[in-house]
Amino acid sequence: MGTAFHYSCRRCGASQDAAPADWLCRCGEPLDIIWASVEARAEFLAGAADLTLGEGNTPVVDLPRIAARLGLRRVRAKLELVNPTGSFKDRGAWLLVGAARALGAAEVVEDSSGNAGAAVAAYAARAGLRAHIFVPADTPAPKLTQIRAYGARIVSVPGGREATTLAALRYVREAGLFYASHNRSPFFTEGMVSFGDEVLRLGPAPTDVVVPVGNGSLVAGLWVAYRRAGRRLPRLHGVQAQACAPLAEAWEKGLPEPVEVAATPTVAGGIRVERPPRGRQVLEIIRESQGSMVAVDEQTILEWVRFLAEHEGIFAEPTSAAALAGLARLIADGRLPLDADVLVPITGTGLKAAAG
Amino acid sequence: MGTAFHYSCRRCGASQDAAPADWLCRCGEPLDIIWASVEARAEFLAGAADLTLGEGNTPVVDLPRIAARLGLRRVRAKLELVNPTGSFKDRGAWLLVGAARALGAAEVVEDSSGNAGAAVAAYAARAGLRAHIFVPADTPAPKLTQIRAYGARIVSVPGGREATTLAALRYVREAGLFYASHNRSPFFTEGMVSFGDEVLRLGPAPTDVVVPVGNGSLVAGLWVAYRRAGRRLPRLHGVQAQACAPLAEAWEKGLPEPVEVAATPTVAGGIRVERPPRGRQVLEIIRESQGSMVAVDEQTILEWVRFLAEHEGIFAEPTSAAALAGLARLIADGRLPLDADVLVPITGTGLKAAAG
Repeated sequence: MGTAFHYSCRRCGASQDAAPADWLCRCGEPLDIIWASVEARAEFLAGAADLTLGEGNTPVVDLPRIAARLGLRRVRAKLELVNPTGSFKDRGAWLLVGAARALGAAEVVEDSSGNAGAAVAAYAARAGLRAHIFVPADTPAPKLTQIRAYGARIVSVPGGREATTLAALRYVREAGLFYASHNRSPFFTEGMVSFGDEVLRLGPAPTDVVVPVGNGSLVAGLWVAYRRAGRRLPRLHGVQAQACAPLAEAWEKGLPEPVEVAATPTVAGGIRVERPPRGRQVLEIIRESQGSMVAVDEQTILEWVRFLAEHEGIFAEPTSAAALAGLARLIADGRLPLDADVLVPITGTGLKAAAG
Repeated sequence: MGTAFHYSCRRCGASQDAAPADWLCRCGEPLDIIWASVEARAEFLAGAADLTLGEGNTPVVDLPRIAARLGLRRVRAKLELVNPTGSFKDRGAWLLVGAARALGAAEVVEDSSGNAGAAVAAYAARAGLRAHIFVPADTPAPKLTQIRAYGARIVSVPGGREATTLAALRYVREAGLFYASHNRSPFFTEGMVSFGDEVLRLGPAPTDVVVPVGNGSLVAGLWVAYRRAGRRLPRLHGVQAQACAPLAEAWEKGLPEPVEVAATPTVAGGIRVERPPRGRQVLEIIRESQGSMVAVDEQTILEWVRFLAEHEGIFAEPTSAAALAGLARLIADGRLPLDADVLVPITGTGLKAAAG
């Protein structure tokens, strides 16, 4: 294993063979993986092949009614909601759980607003690993039902998303378990690279990709894929809920780091990450792509959930619709040209939020 | 349109250019479509291309834990739950709604236990058609939430599944609307042919396919695909819930028609069809394939929901797990050899039934 990859910090440049349990460099930045070779990476991925549930290779469809409403040349959706557990998180969770198994873990710990928790629980079940999923106390019931169905242990944490992360970390340290953190582990990001690879293969290429951003794993996956392919990124636009916008606020103020926010509840639970560990990277990547960050309000998010379902036949969770609300905002602000060819991932199914 | 296809009855041989509103031949059998040519069919399908949501082309994954538990050589799952509305019904609904639009309909009527209703509502939304979805009064809340999200009108009918069909038919006649019936319209079956086409391309080919059967649209789709390809069917095994087993009971008694049953409630709502319109065809096809029909109890269905999620990482609705319960039954009865290479479609996501 030691020769297949090492860990590296893009902030301070430190390099190490093994990662600490919390995946952070001494300087506080989450570590990246540097593969010894393309073959080493391929071999590592092949080691997790038996765990696949067919994640990825999601369909791309036109959204003609939305394009017409916004006055845009073209809008396409990449339907990440058809992934096996109902969200794009399956791409990363597959490899993250595969890595946990390869590194000798028998149990994994994750903290999640729901989707990543379900994804890690599913792949852990498939790998025969015990999963402990820490969730905020206000996680929607269907997401809990799903996590529980995979046989995972759920730990409900009061006090919001950040408190959930801290509780999971405490447990990781006390019990000496593998921290299958989708927000911190670079193996999750590696799994997300397949999203970027698929966007790379799209013809015609989109000029702009608009994504909901919590910790920005879609942004990171796109960046790695394009860098490895030696291709220039499309403009990347990250959308957050105004209720929790540490990156959009930093963007607005021209800061390189996420700002400290006290999040209020949002329908877009999937992007409620108060302190995104990879936030600095995300801001860098978005700047490099000549894109932007934008924040949207609750009402507009829900209006787009409705428009997407009623006019395009796609029932998404609010987090996904936030990207469309952001797209509308960017156009209203003149920050996105009307001749753009836009791609929007629809990150999770509306069934996830369809509480009885 | 009139030259692209005509309707034909496989029971009495009658042929006609237009179908009656209820899709039934004068002899009572649902009509089939006979295409003028392969090109005529391809052209008709192309006419619905803008409605696609990427349905079909679902992943096939091994179920090693289930194979080991059953002592079988190999069991694979075709993950139909990753379809855009969360069930295999999307394959048929896509073409059914496309046909409705091509035939000039502005509104469609469907009756469904939930999955087909959601699928028809989604594609109707995408096609700009108004949908009226008749559902049994005890349909799970998440399914209703989903149907409603697409902007469809829901009509809740007390008295069970058959009463729902009768209410929908009454409305079709009174309002003069298009009956987008997944159980009766041959356009739905045509859409299901893609399932058979994909099974045809599987290597190695399965020796046995075990499917949950309500009206048997998967069975019909397989049959049409294999006949058109000039290939011999694998053994097809149809599974019903004991609570509603008109076809399994007919099979047991050696009868060519579904028997009349008074259904009791079942967790497998997707196969609760008391009077399957295409039941006679399904029994014929299963006999031709040298397969069998089997009925399973509620407890065993729920046990397989759990095993599938906890050991293979797949969260399915009970209707899907009924197929696994049936597979176990067939093996226990010595009706399926242990060296079989079995394929089971996982027809719908567990999120559909995950009521808060």
